[in-house]
Amino acid sequence: MKAVRIYGEKDIRVEDVEIPEPKDDQVQLKVKYCGICGSDLHAYLEGWGLPTVPYPLTGKTVPITLGHEFSGEVVKVGKDVDNLKVGDHVAVEPLLACGKCENCRAGNYNFCNRAVSTDGAGNFLGFSEDGGMAQYANVQGVFAHKLPEDMSFELGALAEPTAVVYEAIKKSHLREGQSVGVMGAGPIGLLEALLAKLAGATKVYIVDVSKVRLAKAKELGLENALDPTQVDVEKEIKKDFPNGVDITFECAGVQATFDTALKITKRTGTLQIVALYGKPLTMNMTDDLIMQGLDIITTLCYNNSFPNVLGIIDNHKDLFKKIVTKKVSLDDALDQGIKALATDKSQVKILIDPAL
Amino acid sequence: MKAVRIYGEKDIRVEDVEIPEPKDDQVQLKVKYCGICGSDLHAYLEGWGLPTVPYPLTGKTVPITLGHEFSGEVVKVGKDVDNLKVGDHVAVEPLLACGKCENCRAGNYNFCNRAVSTDGAGNFLGFSEDGGMAQYANVQGVFAHKLPEDMSFELGALAEPTAVVYEAIKKSHLREGQSVGVMGAGPIGLLEALLAKLAGATKVYIVDVSKVRLAKAKELGLENALDPTQVDVEKEIKKDFPNGVDITFECAGVQATFDTALKITKRTGTLQIVALYGKPLTMNMTDDLIMQGLDIITTLCYNNSFPNVLGIIDNHKDLFKKIVTKKVSLDDALDQGIKALATDKSQVKILIDPAL
Repeated sequence: MKAVRIYGEKDIRVEDVEIPEPKDDQVQLKVKYCGICGSDLHAYLEGWGLPTVPYPLTGKTVPITLGHEFSGEVVKVGKDVDNLKVGDHVAVEPLLACGKCENCRAGNYNFCNRAVSTDGAGNFLGFSEDGGMAQYANVQGVFAHKLPEDMSFELGALAEPTAVVYEAIKKSHLREGQSVGVMGAGPIGLLEALLAKLAGATKVYIVDVSKVRLAKAKELGLENALDPTQVDVEKEIKKDFPNGVDITFECAGVQATFDTALKITKRTGTLQIVALYGKPLTMNMTDDLIMQGLDIITTLCYNNSFPNVLGIIDNHKDLFKKIVTKKVSLDDALDQGIKALATDKSQVKILIDPAL
Repeated sequence: MKAVRIYGEKDIRVEDVEIPEPKDDQVQLKVKYCGICGSDLHAYLEGWGLPTVPYPLTGKTVPITLGHEFSGEVVKVGKDVDNLKVGDHVAVEPLLACGKCENCRAGNYNFCNRAVSTDGAGNFLGFSEDGGMAQYANVQGVFAHKLPEDMSFELGALAEPTAVVYEAIKKSHLREGQSVGVMGAGPIGLLEALLAKLAGATKVYIVDVSKVRLAKAKELGLENALDPTQVDVEKEIKKDFPNGVDITFECAGVQATFDTALKITKRTGTLQIVALYGKPLTMNMTDDLIMQGLDIITTLCYNNSFPNVLGIIDNHKDLFKKIVTKKVSLDDALDQGIKALATDKSQVKILIDPAL
């Protein structure tokens, strides 16, 4: 079969590889769509998250088939899988977890203690195990979630990035009626803002310096899209909320957006970190956090949320359809897909369609 | 009456001042004991927290009578106070709060939005209103908490610092049976470790570079007292808890202790900030926090906890008695009290006794 394989920094090859048999606890999927994530771009540009030594749970090193945002149809079922049958449509929760350690048993399998590698390789399919940028993929039965009856595979492929922002909503304890700020209008920021609205936030501000992204935000119904090069974001928000917003989701991951997030969040509010940060961050713990009654809440991946997320997407199909901005073939995955994420800010979610 | 007045940085004078009449919502106390806090030392050394412009809720600027950890006997009762009578023994919750703003109404009166000054003056008696280092003090009736029947005034004066560490226990959601690390064995670190034990923590590690303080910790029954210049703290703790402790209380407030706190806390654990930080802090958000599932929880003062704290002290009188290491007169408050905090590490809590 055809697969998009990463060998290391700036080395992605579309190759013909054998289709392995699924293990007893796995199903084999005919991949229908696989989204491209910012982390795929980081893997390509910097080798981020790739296993250079054998990954504890899988024994794998590069090359690896990329892709962790995918949906597909079940074509084979391992003998120990009792929740799925051939023909089922599923979205994949791409985590690698032992299921046995302290964190797995506590439900925090996104922090599986055995899914930790000395080289920082990612605990995902598409990083430390072959993923979904291929014609077929094998996944654990427990991590293949059936799509609601009338949900398309395109929408199914959005479950994973939506689960990322859903986890942040969960951890922030957002309640209907609260006010929200979102730093960054990239794919994750846009999804976070949409989900905050769907969770009943009274007003959601989204902040970005890119005019194209702010236009996209408005297209998605996010009217309070602010450009810090044009307006004083803090002043603008405090016209409506003199004390600041209840919760700020930091989806940009740089010092400047972190600093703005501190300023727009009300005392005793919540600063919810969603982005990864490429560089060390400096903060004034006393004045900016302690005196303001602010906690810093982080989030990584998701756990136990795919059924909820699929339900949300199913209830708002027309909205989520707008998230998909482009479809490309496996052959074009690198040039038209992964690289486009870095250059074309009008893209939200690019899906790979292995049938193209 | 005699009062310890602060005029600014390195300017404390013991003076004779008039005793003002209590307002309608206040009681007047004959002060019995007033503890000296690290923040009193910072006020003296750096002018920290002192009102140089009129403080919003009180209109006061320096000079101010210091002292925010005090107990006393009610000698006058304002006409609107219905919970106290002459002769009552009380501990004072020294916060300044409007009682009307969003945060006050939400119970977070330690973050009163009207108790914020442009110069960062402290929202306490003893900073932005006359406090307890005097023979008499006027305090709001609602903030004067009756001592349990047989509690001494010495122990009553410990309610305030104990409320600080109790708030951190509350915010950390510590549960009986969990493991705990405490960075710093100064007065707050020692109290935090004691309270974690009383809250049922299975094992409490306390870390400090001062041999005198570690000896004091052991004297107080904190057996797992670690010196980072002698042992590898992370290794030592991970002998017992391979994944790290459930909760770390950072009671030291410098980069090195923050960094150690990150290392000894288990993935998905809690990093509870208790200390104030004098300098900006640098952190690697992605590797040290996000990937470890760690949140940073801050705490400032306390709210709605004095009755609980007095109950805890009352249940463990013998233990808390050991916290008081020295008593001084008002005249000796500066030289024997405030300055001693900086130089004599064997001191935990020095009390001023106005009767001396």
